[in-house]
Amino acid sequence: MSRAVLFTRAQEPFRVVDYPDPEPMGGEIRVRIRCCTICRSDLHTHSGRRVQPSPTILGHEITGRIDAFGPDARRVDAAGQPAEIGTRVTWAIAVGCGDCFYCQDDLPQKCEKPFKFGHTQVDPQRPLGGGLADTVMLTPLTQWFCVPDSVSDSMAAPANCATATVAGLLRTAGTIANRSVLVLGAGVLGVTACAMAQSLGASRVMVCDPSAESQQRAREFGATDTSGVDPSDQRAMIADATAGRGADVVLELAGVASSVQSAMQLARIGGQVILAGTVAPTPGVTFDPEQVVKRMLRISGVHNYHPRDLRAALDFLAGPGRAYPFESLVSRRYALAEVDAAFSDAHAHPGVRIAVMPQLEA
Amino acid sequence: MSRAVLFTRAQEPFRVVDYPDPEPMGGEIRVRIRCCTICRSDLHTHSGRRVQPSPTILGHEITGRIDAFGPDARRVDAAGQPAEIGTRVTWAIAVGCGDCFYCQDDLPQKCEKPFKFGHTQVDPQRPLGGGLADTVMLTPLTQWFCVPDSVSDSMAAPANCATATVAGLLRTAGTIANRSVLVLGAGVLGVTACAMAQSLGASRVMVCDPSAESQQRAREFGATDTSGVDPSDQRAMIADATAGRGADVVLELAGVASSVQSAMQLARIGGQVILAGTVAPTPGVTFDPEQVVKRMLRISGVHNYHPRDLRAALDFLAGPGRAYPFESLVSRRYALAEVDAAFSDAHAHPGVRIAVMPQLEA
Repeated sequence: MSRAVLFTRAQEPFRVVDYPDPEPMGGEIRVRIRCCTICRSDLHTHSGRRVQPSPTILGHEITGRIDAFGPDARRVDAAGQPAEIGTRVTWAIAVGCGDCFYCQDDLPQKCEKPFKFGHTQVDPQRPLGGGLADTVMLTPLTQWFCVPDSVSDSMAAPANCATATVAGLLRTAGTIANRSVLVLGAGVLGVTACAMAQSLGASRVMVCDPSAESQQRAREFGATDTSGVDPSDQRAMIADATAGRGADVVLELAGVASSVQSAMQLARIGGQVILAGTVAPTPGVTFDPEQVVKRMLRISGVHNYHPRDLRAALDFLAGPGRAYPFESLVSRRYALAEVDAAFSDAHAHPGVRIAVMPQLEA
Repeated sequence: MSRAVLFTRAQEPFRVVDYPDPEPMGGEIRVRIRCCTICRSDLHTHSGRRVQPSPTILGHEITGRIDAFGPDARRVDAAGQPAEIGTRVTWAIAVGCGDCFYCQDDLPQKCEKPFKFGHTQVDPQRPLGGGLADTVMLTPLTQWFCVPDSVSDSMAAPANCATATVAGLLRTAGTIANRSVLVLGAGVLGVTACAMAQSLGASRVMVCDPSAESQQRAREFGATDTSGVDPSDQRAMIADATAGRGADVVLELAGVASSVQSAMQLARIGGQVILAGTVAPTPGVTFDPEQVVKRMLRISGVHNYHPRDLRAALDFLAGPGRAYPFESLVSRRYALAEVDAAFSDAHAHPGVRIAVMPQLEA
């Protein structure tokens, strides 16, 4: 049997269900889950701020071991590395169809008919598509990667969401070496961005966050300068760090309108503003078109990531990322049957990751 | 003697003045002006909407013949092509210092200490720095280019502003081949953008402009689809041309807030919005950060251009641009002594270029 935890409606308790163990067909791969971390979007769904079809198995930050290959399944990962039964893997959340306009335009994360792990209504024929379970079935087009030995389960699980997203943001920004980077919001994405920007040779890594504790954590992840979110404090820090010019690259990860406004004001002439935090409704933000033109700002919205960003994320965690305390970001571990408690804990502590691990069931 | 036309104050008549013919020193080059076309920013200064130091010699869309090289002047253009006395040339409006942060960052158009032709208060020692004159002195760091024989004076003059700016916009947009391009505003920049986008292989070139006459002109310059600026008309045209997705690339050249708003709404998911028209104050524009993120918009403000864009503009005019009626954009020609009449004409006919030609003085 396979066990999963069903989400049916916002703010209602989860329900543990058992399914017959599914056999992988065609190109499918059956994976036994080792770890699923709870993402902010899971919390938004759980609280009702975000609506998705239900019943569903939430959880998309997943790592596990290959348990069975379907008869047509590839036995090499998306980067060409061989895998076998027992190999630890993780994979891109969104599976593109490969054929639509956006897949053909190299934007598989905007596929017109995507399958998204942890985001799909349970199909009674193929129910295991989310991370809050002991088993998940990878669909044939899933872009999966072997997890390097040095990357633990609790580091690998968030890789396919937070770490890969940050890799995509920095890919969008282009050159980071010798550039000043400003990170707005020091949650998990923010501190990951600090570490990755520093590893890429950023000249300064500046962070704004209202929490002194989060600022301190950002410093442990490579931030060179931190401030709160008072505009005059922000301006003073950035002026000091950039000879008054403003930041070369600004990453908006706080997801609030005031922070988006700051992002546009704190970038230098010709600077890049990467918006990624506002994945839920916010008030509108007003900008001055003359300033955007004359200051030659480049503003990019980034949502989700490309499979190549997940590969970059794993390479980072197995390489330069080892210099930073990523392990400390996953603070507490729960069994599948304790998912309600895990979500309460996650709601109460947004700055860290909470892990659900089926093997704790034993 | 050299003759120039001085601008002293908004809405006051110009004043014709004569200066002793200057000898080029060091790396300077003396050019006898053949043609100066009047740009919208000249009109803004003339009407008082835009303020610049005065007295000044307006006019920056200039072409002329080399008349004398300073002793240290290079005798090859910025692309390495040899030149001699009599060679027709044009040059980048903004001359970067080469040393400051922005020059070193390959943004010479945002130099901290730029010299800009047609934008600088008259220096009594070196007065000839604008196009409304029969002579202009190129400063040593001026990025000048030989004008191909097939490009007439009245096509070459606007090249260093309108045509080069459009070349810079399309360089910023990246790939144009097989992309749908939406141009908002069918003035001189707009129709130039139509021709250049079509030449680069755009799948559709869509144009929105309130004037039926301008829409017609845009069609002569390669537009495949045109509409007015009523939002439902715009949406219908774009939906029809892009299978309902929206434009791959949007160029905002109208310079009004409502058009900036449209630009962000009419781009497809993952599309590019290039803002270039709003070079004067406008009301603020409000956007929805969630939409910018989830639709993965890329928004770039572009102001002025890089010298390489002027080279691309001249190559275009000498090559594929010959298929379009650029000559027709410069509708009337005036002598230096008729500059007041030339500006009245230009204010009254914003869709075309008015030329001032010193040789008509004779």
